[in-house]
Amino acid sequence: MNLDNTWFTEIEKSNNFAFSLKVKRKLHEEQSPYQKIEVYETESFGNLLTLDGLTMLTDRDNFIYHEMMTHPILFTHLNPKQVVIIGGGDCGALKEVLKHKGVEKVYQIDIDERVTRVAEQFFPDLCTTNNDPRANLLFEDGIKWMQNVPENSIDVIIVDSTDPIGPGEVLFSEQFYAQCRRALKPDGLYVQQSESPLFQLNLLQSMHKTLQAGGFAMTQTYQFFQCTYPSGWWTGTLAGEGDLTEFRYEDAENKDFTTHYYNPEIHSASLILPNFLLEALA
Amino acid sequence: MNLDNTWFTEIEKSNNFAFSLKVKRKLHEEQSPYQKIEVYETESFGNLLTLDGLTMLTDRDNFIYHEMMTHPILFTHLNPKQVVIIGGGDCGALKEVLKHKGVEKVYQIDIDERVTRVAEQFFPDLCTTNNDPRANLLFEDGIKWMQNVPENSIDVIIVDSTDPIGPGEVLFSEQFYAQCRRALKPDGLYVQQSESPLFQLNLLQSMHKTLQAGGFAMTQTYQFFQCTYPSGWWTGTLAGEGDLTEFRYEDAENKDFTTHYYNPEIHSASLILPNFLLEALA
Repeated sequence: MNLDNTWFTEIEKSNNFAFSLKVKRKLHEEQSPYQKIEVYETESFGNLLTLDGLTMLTDRDNFIYHEMMTHPILFTHLNPKQVVIIGGGDCGALKEVLKHKGVEKVYQIDIDERVTRVAEQFFPDLCTTNNDPRANLLFEDGIKWMQNVPENSIDVIIVDSTDPIGPGEVLFSEQFYAQCRRALKPDGLYVQQSESPLFQLNLLQSMHKTLQAGGFAMTQTYQFFQCTYPSGWWTGTLAGEGDLTEFRYEDAENKDFTTHYYNPEIHSASLILPNFLLEALA
Repeated sequence: MNLDNTWFTEIEKSNNFAFSLKVKRKLHEEQSPYQKIEVYETESFGNLLTLDGLTMLTDRDNFIYHEMMTHPILFTHLNPKQVVIIGGGDCGALKEVLKHKGVEKVYQIDIDERVTRVAEQFFPDLCTTNNDPRANLLFEDGIKWMQNVPENSIDVIIVDSTDPIGPGEVLFSEQFYAQCRRALKPDGLYVQQSESPLFQLNLLQSMHKTLQAGGFAMTQTYQFFQCTYPSGWWTGTLAGEGDLTEFRYEDAENKDFTTHYYNPEIHSASLILPNFLLEALA
């Protein structure tokens, strides 16, 4: 069956796979200095944000990605106070991070201010904490920012970036990982979205090696469902010095905020990998 | 971006979602007495089997579905000997079941013999055990077959059916569940593919109630990744009398056959559900 032009389609060329959401109308389109930003109103997923034609999030299912990019690392760190988000201009990760009352400061560094302004307009639910006094929204180059941050000053770095093509590519490099390792305190933790294990297995393998080359002793991939990213199967990869499978289980169980996907058992379960992935990452 | 006619597309109408695989050519097309059977050669997923336009399996990722529809229930049962597969005409589930040496007899009951003949031709890897002396391939109505099977005679029933629309619908009914409960021994176990928790939450909720109305004391949903089913997020639902989260962990760890997705830790992890699903099924 062919789709008519009432559908938004994203093609994952290297796997000859595509997925589509039926749209009511396009709400916004602009070319920022960095990328093409578009917002659609869909039939069943609420609003949809795309950058250069690639899905960033929908109202309906972004809760999974944002919860799983933040709560696992924040409950793995013993006492996260200073948090940095690289990318994340839609502010969804920021909102989840700020649910942790112990967090004292969050720097969100996205090169493209227009993404945040568009999110404020079309995804207001994600932006309700942008004016939190602990939130610092900076619109500059995250790589340069990371070079200039004092060493041993950060507890948690979350890289909520686009795919490793175009502007996001340097965020998957050994040089960037080494800068992050330098900026982190000795017990600091790093996490990065790391694509689909079915579609981008080579990338996942090389990420582990590159993170280790950048100075991280330990790396750990975990997985979650994300229906509006190609294959519906997504991962984050943690890096640090200690055992990345241990976390503050009781604190996660007794947290004083609501989550729709994350719970401490899901956290444990997400760290369990299927055989082919264990073998690929061995 | 629009897809041209070199793509196979499946539309999930109730969620206004679609996914597509790029195809090289159509290898086969026929109208059986029950459904339209088509086979495509795809660019990146090997061969693709569809029934009435809906994806049944691809060479690339069917291992996940077939492993997860068989090994969890077979390692939950203490000593499965008599196994019934309702549907499953592609023979992929049968092949996984027969890896368990303790299994003495498997009845595979698919109403449409043509599905099996097409699988033998285009998915020979799935059909290598069709002539195993323990395998009994029957081409008849699974509901009628289940009515006539002696009570308390079966250890495990696996319902590997199409969606609950059209011919598969009756396989989601209280009457069918009651027949299965009757056919099972007191410690017998039932499992059925139970769709996407994101897209078919109402179905999943009603399935638990209907299974219980059909006579099963306990029900338990578990989840796995399945990129070529809508949303990429799929479930099986177990039913029986005892604790369905306990299983023969050591036997699963020491199994004498290879799996590419399943391992005992994945088994445990698959039983852990995210908050919204726990709430929906509470």
